Amino acid sequence: MSRTAADQRPRAVRARFRAGESAPTAGLAPGHTQANLISVPADWAYDMLLFCQRNPKPCPVLDVTDAGDWSTQLAPGADLRTDLPGYRVWEHGALVAEPDEVTGHWRGDLVTFLLGCSFTFEAALIAAGVPVRHIELGRNVPMYDTDRPCRPAGRLHGRTVVSMRPVPPERLSAAIRETALFPSFHGSPVHCGDPAALGIADLDRPDFGDPVDVRPDEIPVFWACGVTPQAAVMASRPPFAITHAPGRMLITDARDEHYRVL
Amino acid sequence: MSRTAADQRPRAVRARFRAGESAPTAGLAPGHTQANLISVPADWAYDMLLFCQRNPKPCPVLDVTDAGDWSTQLAPGADLRTDLPGYRVWEHGALVAEPDEVTGHWRGDLVTFLLGCSFTFEAALIAAGVPVRHIELGRNVPMYDTDRPCRPAGRLHGRTVVSMRPVPPERLSAAIRETALFPSFHGSPVHCGDPAALGIADLDRPDFGDPVDVRPDEIPVFWACGVTPQAAVMASRPPFAITHAPGRMLITDARDEHYRVL
Repeated sequence: MSRTAADQRPRAVRARFRAGESAPTAGLAPGHTQANLISVPADWAYDMLLFCQRNPKPCPVLDVTDAGDWSTQLAPGADLRTDLPGYRVWEHGALVAEPDEVTGHWRGDLVTFLLGCSFTFEAALIAAGVPVRHIELGRNVPMYDTDRPCRPAGRLHGRTVVSMRPVPPERLSAAIRETALFPSFHGSPVHCGDPAALGIADLDRPDFGDPVDVRPDEIPVFWACGVTPQAAVMASRPPFAITHAPGRMLITDARDEHYRVL
Repeated sequence: MSRTAADQRPRAVRARFRAGESAPTAGLAPGHTQANLISVPADWAYDMLLFCQRNPKPCPVLDVTDAGDWSTQLAPGADLRTDLPGYRVWEHGALVAEPDEVTGHWRGDLVTFLLGCSFTFEAALIAAGVPVRHIELGRNVPMYDTDRPCRPAGRLHGRTVVSMRPVPPERLSAAIRETALFPSFHGSPVHCGDPAALGIADLDRPDFGDPVDVRPDEIPVFWACGVTPQAAVMASRPPFAITHAPGRMLITDARDEHYRVL
């Protein structure tokens, strides 16, 4: 299929996903904000919102729907049940399905949280001369479980998940500066350097996404990741939840620049 | 009473307030984060947390207690019922008391929200050469109701309240830059210039706090204010609420610099 410029409009990209296409969303619809999705039953919504407030780096909240609503003001016309390129369905903390759409799984009591995503700051990184390896390679970003506990909230607890991008030392300042100005997209890195400091044993074996090569002169840089609530679902076992599939985000109509603090 | 450097430690300042002293807290315990307080019954806590998420400039959440708890990890040893220099008690949206402490008003179902405060960025403003008139005059900051509606959340709705500081034009860039880097303390201004654009009729008649003079060459600069949840309480009439008295904040042990994004 040919790709014209028009294909990269958020609405057009969502329409392709709604029609059944599936792909990691890194690099798609550049300049437009991407979001992690997690839907939980209404009686878990306060715990989830508090978990996000208490863990703002992995869980920066961009929008919260009313119970049962599958629309968001971040993407008018979008259907949150069909317009992402991949979902995960969870029961009591266990992954029970990875469908392309979740219309049949939907419940009237689901409250949906849309959380900022590091894919959004990658355009700013590239513009600042920071290479983004997984985009260069056409892969999903590598993501890792860590040993860093989140601050619990009610029944929700779990450990922080991070994404990793290798950065040349001379671009490290730019990488930190550019991402710090987007606290809604995880903000500045949580760690730079030795992965063992986060309890990560092997960069070549990510827990989610694809591995990328780290060159000898490069520093692995770790940002908090919106997969963290999925890790909390696995650890805390709410009776039901729906999430996006890692790396397969909601593409919104919001502009990244709207979230830049300066 | 003589004032030594030790008197400005957060714990010492809170102890004076606990003993009955009352004063606006602007300029006290410099470098330490101050917080707005609002306590609502647990069955209103989700609406309040969502209201804060949907209105992050007036309502940046720093901490949320468990129901009935009067402690916060932001100020170990503090008693949220006694350690502020002034409270307001609300029933069905009406102000029913303005006591020095609220031990007798406390309820086991109260969830307390601590929100960032613009007093916190004033040290950064002064360090950047931006004069802060109300501190120079030893007054409370002037605060105003506006005609700008907040995004509602459940049963909570209301209009944005702002604080105002007059800024010389040559320091306006610094004032915007310094505050933008503190999104947890209301971030960048919501408006600079003509107060009528916010529906403010007369700068000399603030709705809360004290008036300050605006010199002919100065620009009135408006930041979202943590009194906004009090305006939401007045408009939305929850059966019960406790707030700080405007300008009389919780002084925490947290360091302002912890919240600076860059």
